[in-house]
Amino acid sequence: MPTFGEIEGYPEGSLFGDREELRASGLHPPPVAGISGPEREGAESVVLNEGYEDDEDHGDVVIYTGQGGRDPNTGMQIADQELRRGNLALVTSELKGLPVRVVRGPKLKSRFAPDEGYRYDGLYRVESHEHIPGKSGFKIFRYRLVRDDRAKPPAKPIAGGREEPPRVETTVTRVIRDTALTRRIKEVYDYRCQVCGMQLMCEGGPYAEAAHIVPLGRPHDGPDTVDNILCLCPNHHVQFDKGGFTINDDLTLNEIDGRLTIHPDHTVNLDHVQHHRMRFAR
Amino acid sequence: MPTFGEIEGYPEGSLFGDREELRASGLHPPPVAGISGPEREGAESVVLNEGYEDDEDHGDVVIYTGQGGRDPNTGMQIADQELRRGNLALVTSELKGLPVRVVRGPKLKSRFAPDEGYRYDGLYRVESHEHIPGKSGFKIFRYRLVRDDRAKPPAKPIAGGREEPPRVETTVTRVIRDTALTRRIKEVYDYRCQVCGMQLMCEGGPYAEAAHIVPLGRPHDGPDTVDNILCLCPNHHVQFDKGGFTINDDLTLNEIDGRLTIHPDHTVNLDHVQHHRMRFAR
Repeated sequence: MPTFGEIEGYPEGSLFGDREELRASGLHPPPVAGISGPEREGAESVVLNEGYEDDEDHGDVVIYTGQGGRDPNTGMQIADQELRRGNLALVTSELKGLPVRVVRGPKLKSRFAPDEGYRYDGLYRVESHEHIPGKSGFKIFRYRLVRDDRAKPPAKPIAGGREEPPRVETTVTRVIRDTALTRRIKEVYDYRCQVCGMQLMCEGGPYAEAAHIVPLGRPHDGPDTVDNILCLCPNHHVQFDKGGFTINDDLTLNEIDGRLTIHPDHTVNLDHVQHHRMRFAR
Repeated sequence: MPTFGEIEGYPEGSLFGDREELRASGLHPPPVAGISGPEREGAESVVLNEGYEDDEDHGDVVIYTGQGGRDPNTGMQIADQELRRGNLALVTSELKGLPVRVVRGPKLKSRFAPDEGYRYDGLYRVESHEHIPGKSGFKIFRYRLVRDDRAKPPAKPIAGGREEPPRVETTVTRVIRDTALTRRIKEVYDYRCQVCGMQLMCEGGPYAEAAHIVPLGRPHDGPDTVDNILCLCPNHHVQFDKGGFTINDDLTLNEIDGRLTIHPDHTVNLDHVQHHRMRFAR
């Protein structure tokens, strides 16, 4: 049974001499594996140590490679990674919005590595993932882990006996970017979803979201340009970002029925559509 | 034609002797009105000065009362406020995710008021609104304005000729809270929406959102308890939060077809459902 979030008695910055001391704290129970947590419940913690050739440590943002496909003797990538075990657990964490404890180890090649031993570095959330060829040419999972700075206690409940006492735990968020550019796209489509045509009516007017086809930021590095943005309803936005469907070059859809609508005043770059299609495992 | 976001040459903290100087800067064009911007395009700016009896200024969070319904001589609230003009413009800003410039004036009763003149205090976003009886007994609009600390330049575009140059503008976000409590509710419903029954499938598993019936925080002050939380798909979550539908005590819905499903292991507090129903104008 995994434990998500902070572990009492072990604040951020806690140091441990070796994996056995780390294991005993409860911060990261497995004695060897880098990802802890069952496939369907989610990943409670990861250890960054040595690391895969495709890892990147930017401090508050970590590009973390999934597990499997490496030769146990040489450490070389010799096969594709699969969506199971720790890799699936991290995808589950992304979908459930679970906090992941990040521990950095002594062999990590990063300026954020501890001088010796293992250091607990706080809570991160899994913002996105991709399943693409790594430097080896074999397909790997790469996760964008972002420090959860919004982790704070929930709002204090109002007076009254029925409410639960305030608990210190993490809150995570789904971020929807809105800029002049994304608003322009929504107006072109009159706030209708390019997948289902729905215009979500609210008090005062319709609501739609702008979805980047290739996400901004590492590791995806999509551009903030109109040909990389779609106008979607919130459901199809989530499903698109989380690999629930992909788009073919002829604009038909995979995994769900339908076809992407494109307005004459809008061009969608098929290179970006292909990149999105390749990012997911199926 | 309104201008959203920062105005070049007038950074946060800019001071103005009177409304005419403020008007000339472009930060808040109307000579008298407190809300600037057309109904269907959105509110570009608001001025906090004197203020309504139901206003609250917490600095980073402002509870701002809409316009109308006051006796021009006494300033007393003598009628209900309506969803039009500045009030509708602020609802449009909420739906579109537009940044709103906040200016504080000299008559504001708040520790954040300037000593004299008008001060531009940066960008806020409209997080929620309600249409409920104020201290006067007449129905007023109240908006929760939250400082947009996430306002920052977009990610730098990758090299290449096609991309637009980076522009400094605001980005705003839709915040989805996820805690142990909200995850428990989602599991009870097996990630199915209580309104439409849909289970949004993504790569790796289903996705659902937990919606607070009465929102947490000022001015709504809903409790973070299971009887104040619903499991919804993203579409119905947005529509519920933005007044696109409400729920009757018999669990039938207003504005859209259907009926709320409730699991035997979950109790929904009808006081909260009624509070949500009363919050919206229709």
